[in-house]
Amino acid sequence: MTTPLILVTNDDGIQAPGLALLADALKALGEVHVYAPDRQQSAVGHGVSLWKPLRVTQVREHWFQVDGTPTDCVMLAVRSLLGRRPDLLVSGINTGANLGDDVTYSGTVAGAFEGMLLGVPSFAISNVSHNPRHLDAAATFAVKLGRRILDHGMPEDTMLNVNLPDLPYEELAGVAITRMGRRNYQDEIIRREDPRGRVYYWIGGADPTHAQESGTDFEAIEKGQISVTPLHRDLTNHAAMHHFFEPQIEL
Amino acid sequence: MTTPLILVTNDDGIQAPGLALLADALKALGEVHVYAPDRQQSAVGHGVSLWKPLRVTQVREHWFQVDGTPTDCVMLAVRSLLGRRPDLLVSGINTGANLGDDVTYSGTVAGAFEGMLLGVPSFAISNVSHNPRHLDAAATFAVKLGRRILDHGMPEDTMLNVNLPDLPYEELAGVAITRMGRRNYQDEIIRREDPRGRVYYWIGGADPTHAQESGTDFEAIEKGQISVTPLHRDLTNHAAMHHFFEPQIEL
Repeated sequence: MTTPLILVTNDDGIQAPGLALLADALKALGEVHVYAPDRQQSAVGHGVSLWKPLRVTQVREHWFQVDGTPTDCVMLAVRSLLGRRPDLLVSGINTGANLGDDVTYSGTVAGAFEGMLLGVPSFAISNVSHNPRHLDAAATFAVKLGRRILDHGMPEDTMLNVNLPDLPYEELAGVAITRMGRRNYQDEIIRREDPRGRVYYWIGGADPTHAQESGTDFEAIEKGQISVTPLHRDLTNHAAMHHFFEPQIEL
Repeated sequence: MTTPLILVTNDDGIQAPGLALLADALKALGEVHVYAPDRQQSAVGHGVSLWKPLRVTQVREHWFQVDGTPTDCVMLAVRSLLGRRPDLLVSGINTGANLGDDVTYSGTVAGAFEGMLLGVPSFAISNVSHNPRHLDAAATFAVKLGRRILDHGMPEDTMLNVNLPDLPYEELAGVAITRMGRRNYQDEIIRREDPRGRVYYWIGGADPTHAQESGTDFEAIEKGQISVTPLHRDLTNHAAMHHFFEPQIEL
């Protein structure tokens, strides 16, 4: 059996400590290649650079930085630069949660989503703290989950979105298979004036709250568990496809 | 009954002809306010600007340009600047298809997705041609669909992704409620050298092909139909949640 080829990316950028920790840990499973954005790309969603050329710079053996999004990194690596399809893709370790509706904004999740679209077994992994003390616990779990995926494969058209509470590995309360929870949206637009009296706006501010629902990613984190949410390629709401659209829309 | 408030956005930017056509047509249904990016934002996905302030400039009555993504536009408008939640959001008319897996990259779709997250009945609308001759057909259908949504509401946690073939309205072969199809990914990375001999890459090139599957958005377009795909907020692959994860992952 050939050595597994493992692609690692992130959205916090190539300097992020979570990236190096993850890439080093995954060497236990195979040959690790890193393609990561040259700077912070959080909340870029599944953006892809169609309107500008991309530069790729090697920074050390098997490590490359790209002046684009996580999706750009994965496209370039898988469709061209790696030379063959990797056996596993891991995106992270992100600093900060990717839970509930926020997964749709996440560059970390988008990197894994692109891997899935390209047929690579893929997961995203995040520590929910903005100042994490236990990134190593996420690295340990990434190796465990990665080995399982290399051994058993993944459900078709599915990626995994993994979040860990910021706890030492031995204090984690197990692994929960979860569904995407729901953010409560609050008024989070901040209006300010610049030194020349012109108005500008910030999106964000207070940390958002979430709906209390059982079986969600949010609930697992509150219980001190690792949350593993399988996300699907197909966004169609199959249940809503027909009953709502009767009678048929006529031209 | 108060006049419906209608929010219009796009990802092709405030100068795009499809935006003006759409906004003008929707005046038949209520008071139309436009918040659109100040420049081309195609393929930005569901990106949101968390790391830079946003400027909003009024360009004429009820028309505002934002130096951000479609998601930024919708957040600013709905959560702050409109003053009340709109009754309908329409994103488009996009020049070029948003079909199959490409919906996850699409800024047009992301604008409507954000509307849905904020509780606004929302749809995205695109003409599949890169050089459309019949944008007016999409505007006509947007009014028809918008009226239906204002009268009957929308399924919960769902947005609609609408695509039209580039045909005159009277030549369209009806409306199909579809599911998301599947792109065939090909090798689309182009390698070039700049005048100084340094390598750069382009993503894209040849138009992608798609899987031949019945009931998909791609199939509807091939038949000359308008494709309406309901997309769901919840990306969880519920079917994959349990069977794959037996035995339970142990720490």
